Amino acid sequence: MTSADRKVLVDLGSRSYDIVIGQDVLTDMGRYLDPIIGQGRVHVVTDETVYDLYKDRLYTMERDIGLTVLPSGESQKSFPTLQTVLDNMFEQGLDRADTLLAFGGGVIGDLTGFAASTFKRGCKFVQVPTTLLAQVDSSVGGKTAINVKQGKNLVGAFYQPSLVLTDTSVLSTLPERELKAGYAEILKYGLLGNLDFFNWLEANGNDVLALEPNAVAEAIAVSCMMKAVIVAEDEQERGRRALLNLGHTFGHALEAEAGYSGDLLHGEAVSAGMQMAFEFSASQGLVSREAAEKVAGHLKAKSMKTLADVKSLLGDTDALMRHMSQDKKNEAGKLTFILARAIGEAFVQKDTPADKVREYLQTLI
Amino acid sequence: MTSADRKVLVDLGSRSYDIVIGQDVLTDMGRYLDPIIGQGRVHVVTDETVYDLYKDRLYTMERDIGLTVLPSGESQKSFPTLQTVLDNMFEQGLDRADTLLAFGGGVIGDLTGFAASTFKRGCKFVQVPTTLLAQVDSSVGGKTAINVKQGKNLVGAFYQPSLVLTDTSVLSTLPERELKAGYAEILKYGLLGNLDFFNWLEANGNDVLALEPNAVAEAIAVSCMMKAVIVAEDEQERGRRALLNLGHTFGHALEAEAGYSGDLLHGEAVSAGMQMAFEFSASQGLVSREAAEKVAGHLKAKSMKTLADVKSLLGDTDALMRHMSQDKKNEAGKLTFILARAIGEAFVQKDTPADKVREYLQTLI
Repeated sequence: MTSADRKVLVDLGSRSYDIVIGQDVLTDMGRYLDPIIGQGRVHVVTDETVYDLYKDRLYTMERDIGLTVLPSGESQKSFPTLQTVLDNMFEQGLDRADTLLAFGGGVIGDLTGFAASTFKRGCKFVQVPTTLLAQVDSSVGGKTAINVKQGKNLVGAFYQPSLVLTDTSVLSTLPERELKAGYAEILKYGLLGNLDFFNWLEANGNDVLALEPNAVAEAIAVSCMMKAVIVAEDEQERGRRALLNLGHTFGHALEAEAGYSGDLLHGEAVSAGMQMAFEFSASQGLVSREAAEKVAGHLKAKSMKTLADVKSLLGDTDALMRHMSQDKKNEAGKLTFILARAIGEAFVQKDTPADKVREYLQTLI
Repeated sequence: MTSADRKVLVDLGSRSYDIVIGQDVLTDMGRYLDPIIGQGRVHVVTDETVYDLYKDRLYTMERDIGLTVLPSGESQKSFPTLQTVLDNMFEQGLDRADTLLAFGGGVIGDLTGFAASTFKRGCKFVQVPTTLLAQVDSSVGGKTAINVKQGKNLVGAFYQPSLVLTDTSVLSTLPERELKAGYAEILKYGLLGNLDFFNWLEANGNDVLALEPNAVAEAIAVSCMMKAVIVAEDEQERGRRALLNLGHTFGHALEAEAGYSGDLLHGEAVSAGMQMAFEFSASQGLVSREAAEKVAGHLKAKSMKTLADVKSLLGDTDALMRHMSQDKKNEAGKLTFILARAIGEAFVQKDTPADKVREYLQTLI
């Protein structure tokens, strides 16, 4: 049974766009793509893994396309690879009215979006996210970036796509760990602003993780809707958009301690990071211990990464504090955290006292 | 005698900003800068030429500043230099609320603006243009870019500054050729949309070139006002903003033929390019021969570069056509030109027949 395609509008005035979510979106790609591409040409950026699995889908586009197939992995979010993509676009003779299409997970989407934003100061851009994480998070909202030696995502642009095409059927080839990493970001939307959705996930989370078509499409659609509303309110992350970073400040520090290796996926770090954000909030008397335990309980019930799994990364408090001091959300050298007053009620705390964070981290050793 | 500072508003909603123009703007920099910088830190990007001449002005800012002093010249608009600037900013520990200040000509402004747009997806940006060309053109309107091997300004972003500080006194150290290159862009505003201003330049152009304070401030202010209105209507150059490229399609081809060398400055190419745009328009029966001759006459009267001066670059029609086919304004492989119906009345012609352009170029050999 195929559920009907769902559409979520990201309402950004003249830069508004649709996210189309469905079971077979890619088998009839042209229906959604053609009105965007118009008479223009297309260049597809993908990675070897996705290309090997889904190259047939590309040909449903039925037009000449340029193609950049990159090695898989985070190391591709780099200046040299950015230049490779741009070089290939120049070689194809593209101009601003042509379309750059990202066909892959978050790495491909972030890199390709940044390339699109800088190519002749901006060409058309379409996202076809192929991981659950990318489908609920990185493909929506226009954050693009590459990594530099000083840290992840530190060079980039806010640049919106013209369309996001989300096919849930491609998730069937996704490794279990990556599925759970994506689920962490879905759960995040419940935790940060939607108690009903959290309760829905308590009841239906297993169906989502089992890729039951209606459950997974619903989870993606609700996640995208929540992200779309927040992005529409605060595209450039001057305020409320920072809520989307729930679990990310702690999470990024864990990722840094793991050396950004395959040992800890971003979504896994966010999973443990959300537990930490609720625990730290509880330690500051902001949220009840019960709520923090309920969050931890949900993570355990879904076999998600918890604090117990990242114990080995928590030994060096100084290093963790240093990583957090590099966070893009900080202003004038002060720490910003996303904390919670309840499940479904997160808030941005600028000027979080560093000594309180340090104290909390030391209780974890 | 010092004329009072003039202010031109670039009206772009939440991204609006002032251009402040005056004889001694930099000696009291803090008055304008402090409200923009707030509690944040500053990093200044400049080149050796400007730094040697005006480093004293930097200290009027009376705060700790980071500093990147680059070699002078167009070759700095590159990926490696972009990375150098970003590295220095990371080293200084800056965040998005801090300010990157471009202190120099168009090269410094374009490079620094692009760095500001990409640093943590965008930090504050202030332009202090020190050449006439930058003061009337590149510092206003948010076009930033670097060059790549495929051409000039092909990688960049639309990114608006928070403030432009234009001190006319620094023009006294500008070489004569660069002054004239800047004057070409001033003249452009008259030619593309303001017959009164063209007539004012016929009467006062010599005073502008002699740097008579009121004349030069007036010329800069009118130029910035015209650019501000056009940019406010069409920030991303989807339509009307392309008018600002009058003389630039031919001009870029001339620059490319000159190998982007010091032999032909951008403004010099635009000067001859505007003559070509009017002549080509006349050859197509769009504008009167008299108007085209009046334009050429003004250029000659002010000792600006004309067709006669670029004769040696016009020999290879195929090469010129190839350069023009690379223009960012083109769509779907078709040529776009800015042509004229009268002095002060330019228009955008998409789909200009290539054979007509070729025919015109061949008459010049």
